[in-house]
Amino acid sequence: MDAGSSDKLILMGAGNLAWHLGPALQDAGYTLLQVFSHTAGSARALGRRLGVDWTTDAGRLHEEAGLLLFCVSDRVIPELLLRIELKKVMMVHTAGSVPADVFKGIAREYGVLYPLMTFSKDRSLDFSTVPVCIEGSTVNSTSILEKMAGSISGRVYRMDSQQRKILHLSGVFACNFSNHMYHLADEYLAGEGLDFEMLKPLIRETAAKVMEMDPASAQTGPASRNNSAIVRLHIDLLKDHPELQKIYTFVSDSITNHFRA
Amino acid sequence: MDAGSSDKLILMGAGNLAWHLGPALQDAGYTLLQVFSHTAGSARALGRRLGVDWTTDAGRLHEEAGLLLFCVSDRVIPELLLRIELKKVMMVHTAGSVPADVFKGIAREYGVLYPLMTFSKDRSLDFSTVPVCIEGSTVNSTSILEKMAGSISGRVYRMDSQQRKILHLSGVFACNFSNHMYHLADEYLAGEGLDFEMLKPLIRETAAKVMEMDPASAQTGPASRNNSAIVRLHIDLLKDHPELQKIYTFVSDSITNHFRA
Repeated sequence: MDAGSSDKLILMGAGNLAWHLGPALQDAGYTLLQVFSHTAGSARALGRRLGVDWTTDAGRLHEEAGLLLFCVSDRVIPELLLRIELKKVMMVHTAGSVPADVFKGIAREYGVLYPLMTFSKDRSLDFSTVPVCIEGSTVNSTSILEKMAGSISGRVYRMDSQQRKILHLSGVFACNFSNHMYHLADEYLAGEGLDFEMLKPLIRETAAKVMEMDPASAQTGPASRNNSAIVRLHIDLLKDHPELQKIYTFVSDSITNHFRA
Repeated sequence: MDAGSSDKLILMGAGNLAWHLGPALQDAGYTLLQVFSHTAGSARALGRRLGVDWTTDAGRLHEEAGLLLFCVSDRVIPELLLRIELKKVMMVHTAGSVPADVFKGIAREYGVLYPLMTFSKDRSLDFSTVPVCIEGSTVNSTSILEKMAGSISGRVYRMDSQQRKILHLSGVFACNFSNHMYHLADEYLAGEGLDFEMLKPLIRETAAKVMEMDPASAQTGPASRNNSAIVRLHIDLLKDHPELQKIYTFVSDSITNHFRA
C-alpha cells in the first residue's frame, strides 16, 4: 500500500511537546489522524483535545498516514520503530540531541523538526515566535519540513544534527539550569518562611535584560564584583544546606573567573 | 549645627544602583544635594544627570543634608564612615547582606533601604514594581524609610537584617546565577559559531513560566526526566570545555536529585 500524503499525520507521543505541537499543526491546516502513546490516559486526553482517534498499540497505526511525528522521549524511539508496520511513511522526530539518521534504513524520507522551547501542558504558548530547526534526509523531506515548520513558526532554521545538539545543550544551560536556580531559591525561601513571590520582578528583569544587553554586561552581584566577603557570608549562611552551598560556591567561582580583570 | 531634613539627601555612590535610585527619588520629590563617589568620572556623570553638585571628598559633604544614602559597595562603608564629619545626619545603606547596625554608635537614626533588583546604568527600569525592604533603628527612622520607599515603589516590606540576607542570597540564585547560565550558553554558542539570539524566546518563556507556575512544575529537560543517555551525551560534547562540563554535571545531578521519584 502506498504511503499517504505528508499532510496527514500521526502524533507519536502525547506529552508536553505533542500537547502544543498538535493544536498548532491543526490550526495550520494539517490533518491529525491519530494520537499514539504508551499511556492510555495521555493518548485519550490529547486525542479528545484534538478531536481525533487514539491508540496505545504502535502496530495499529492509521494506514492513511503519510508522516509520523515522534514527540516521545528519545529513549523510546528505537523500540517503537520495531513495532511500526506502516511502509513508505515519512518519519520525523522532535528531539534536540538525537541524530536524524536514527531513521536511516527504516524510512527513505525522514528528518527532524526541533522547536527550541520549554513546553508544559498547562501553559499556552504562541508558537509563531518559537525557533524551529529542521533537517531532512532528502531535498523532498527538507522541503516538507520547511513547509511544516514555516506554517507554525516565523523562525525556521536549517541545521544539521551536530549543530542541533550544540543548540540543545546551550538551551539546557539557558532554560533548564536557570529554572533550577529559581527552584533552589524557591525551596530555600520557603524553608525560611519567605515568599518566592518577592523574587518575581527580579527574575522578570534578569531575563528582560538579556533581550537587549549581552549576558556578560548584564551581570551584577557579589561574585561579579569579586566581593569575597559577601560570598563568604552567603556560604556560611548556607551551612545547613550542603547542596545549595556547593552550587553557590561553584557557580560563584565560575562567575569570579569570568569577571577577573 | 543641627541636621537638615531627611528630605535632603546626599547620594553616597554613583554606581548602577545610585544611577537608578537618584532619579527615582528626585521624581518622588526628594531633594538631592550632592553626589559623592571615590571616582571623579562617576560622581561627575551622575551629578550632571541629576543636575546637582558632586564631590570625591567625603570630608566635604553638603552641611544641609539630613540623610546620607549609601549606594557604595559594602566594603567601602566602614572606611567612608571614618571620613564623614556631618553630625546628626541619618544614615541609610542599600545593601542586602550588610546589617543595619553597621551605623550603630555613629548615627542615632539609621537604617536600610534595599531594593531587590538587578540594576545596570544603561538600562531604564520602572521602580514602582521593585520590592523594597526597609529596616530602621527607631520608630522615626522606620517611618522615614517607609515613606521614602513608598514614594518610589508600590511594594515595601519591613524586614530585619537576617531576613534581608536570606532574601539577598535567594536573589543571587534567581538572578546572578541564572544570568551566569545565560552567559555560559552565550560563550559556548559563540565558540561554535551559533547565535545567542536563538535562545531569547526560550529565556523569555522560562522566566515567564514561573510568574504563573512554581519552578518545580515548570522544570523540563533531560535531567528532570532522568534521561541519563542525553545527559552523558552532553557531558561528552563538553569534553573540551572543562568548566562547562563541571557545571553541567553538577547542576544536572542536583536537578535529578530533585526529580527522582
